[in-house]
Amino acid sequence: MTYELFYWPMIQGRGELVRLALEDAGARYVDVARLPESKGGGIAAMQKLMQAKKGIVPFAPPFLRAGKLLIAQTPNVLLYLAPRLGLVPANEAARLHAHQLALTALDVVNEAHDTHHPIATGLYYEDQKREAKMRAKSFITERIPKFLGYFERTLEQSSGNYLLGRTASYADLTVFQVLRGLDYAFPNGMKKVSRRIKKLRDLEARVANRPKLAAYLASERRIPFNEMGIFRFYPELDRP
Amino acid sequence: MTYELFYWPMIQGRGELVRLALEDAGARYVDVARLPESKGGGIAAMQKLMQAKKGIVPFAPPFLRAGKLLIAQTPNVLLYLAPRLGLVPANEAARLHAHQLALTALDVVNEAHDTHHPIATGLYYEDQKREAKMRAKSFITERIPKFLGYFERTLEQSSGNYLLGRTASYADLTVFQVLRGLDYAFPNGMKKVSRRIKKLRDLEARVANRPKLAAYLASERRIPFNEMGIFRFYPELDRP
Repeated sequence: MTYELFYWPMIQGRGELVRLALEDAGARYVDVARLPESKGGGIAAMQKLMQAKKGIVPFAPPFLRAGKLLIAQTPNVLLYLAPRLGLVPANEAARLHAHQLALTALDVVNEAHDTHHPIATGLYYEDQKREAKMRAKSFITERIPKFLGYFERTLEQSSGNYLLGRTASYADLTVFQVLRGLDYAFPNGMKKVSRRIKKLRDLEARVANRPKLAAYLASERRIPFNEMGIFRFYPELDRP
Repeated sequence: MTYELFYWPMIQGRGELVRLALEDAGARYVDVARLPESKGGGIAAMQKLMQAKKGIVPFAPPFLRAGKLLIAQTPNVLLYLAPRLGLVPANEAARLHAHQLALTALDVVNEAHDTHHPIATGLYYEDQKREAKMRAKSFITERIPKFLGYFERTLEQSSGNYLLGRTASYADLTVFQVLRGLDYAFPNGMKKVSRRIKKLRDLEARVANRPKLAAYLASERRIPFNEMGIFRFYPELDRP
């Protein structure tokens, strides 16, 4: 089966977590909105499904079409894909643990978004810059250490090199992406945190070196971080 | 099996979504942090598990102990409980749809929280009141109509009286709780929205009348909404 991913074509965003899972597994997929409209792609194809008059309708991208299934909400898409892509162990306890960790990593993504849009997603960043500076400060000094400290501790208590133990899961890919995003958005803030997350940094390198993922990260399919995405580099929001 | 729920004892919060599921099913459970410390309860019992040196460690409440399993993150707890409590159909498409809807409802919960804490969870509301007013305004005028409009449309396109069709699921309970919370926090704001969400209001009444849930809602086990919780009534944040 060829999976169809629907997500904004110009950013990594939450869709990147799905892309990472598909790429790591070498799954066949189409990143629909990145195709030209003449090939059934573009944002229009995505929005059409969000305005469907019957069946399951997503609230927002990313969503995935897998045969007859239409699956929306990032953690839900990962929940569906992971067992099919070999990205989660078979036993229920491990699956619940993976989902818990991925949901927690996605909470970081949400909070990272709100550093540049603390007041309203409908307003420009420039119109909430003052508030963004305050929110980013508390995010960098309180939230990042708390979240990353939690994942570091999970690795310390793991029986292997990955969050769940000896085998990689989508939780590792998700935490990897969070680290890359935070590094992009808050390079100074992360410099200060990094010496306390050595195991996480090892995990990040281990994930980045997975052969298929390394090829993906070096390819043009990996959209660079940018200031339309969730993780944005605004120097004024970073630690000085 | 007796489930053990761990959550803050003085608020509804995210833990309420787990309580609603357990209560609706008439499941045996203990709300551990609400028990006296002499009976192994209290917040200390909860925090002890969050500082465990091995096994699965939650990042934050709520979490559930079910036999040997420890399950954290609200949607994850619901994902685990729902099939056991008869709160989701057996087929995969319906389960994924339920999870998607519950995750979307939980996004509303997150955004409702941020109306009174737009800058930092570590600061008092009073110290971010100015920003809270701005965030609440955009939440009421843009986000509430968008989210509730989405759920209303899901009901319109449903083949039955519930979000998934003819049988109730934990998605309905979650959306019910979101409506009750929004009504508490933003009574004026919701008055304006209510005429456009007639099917949602019917759903809310249908859920509230489920016998076990009605008994729970009328009991002392249902903690009243209050200004320590996620949905808070601050008149200055509501529509005038």
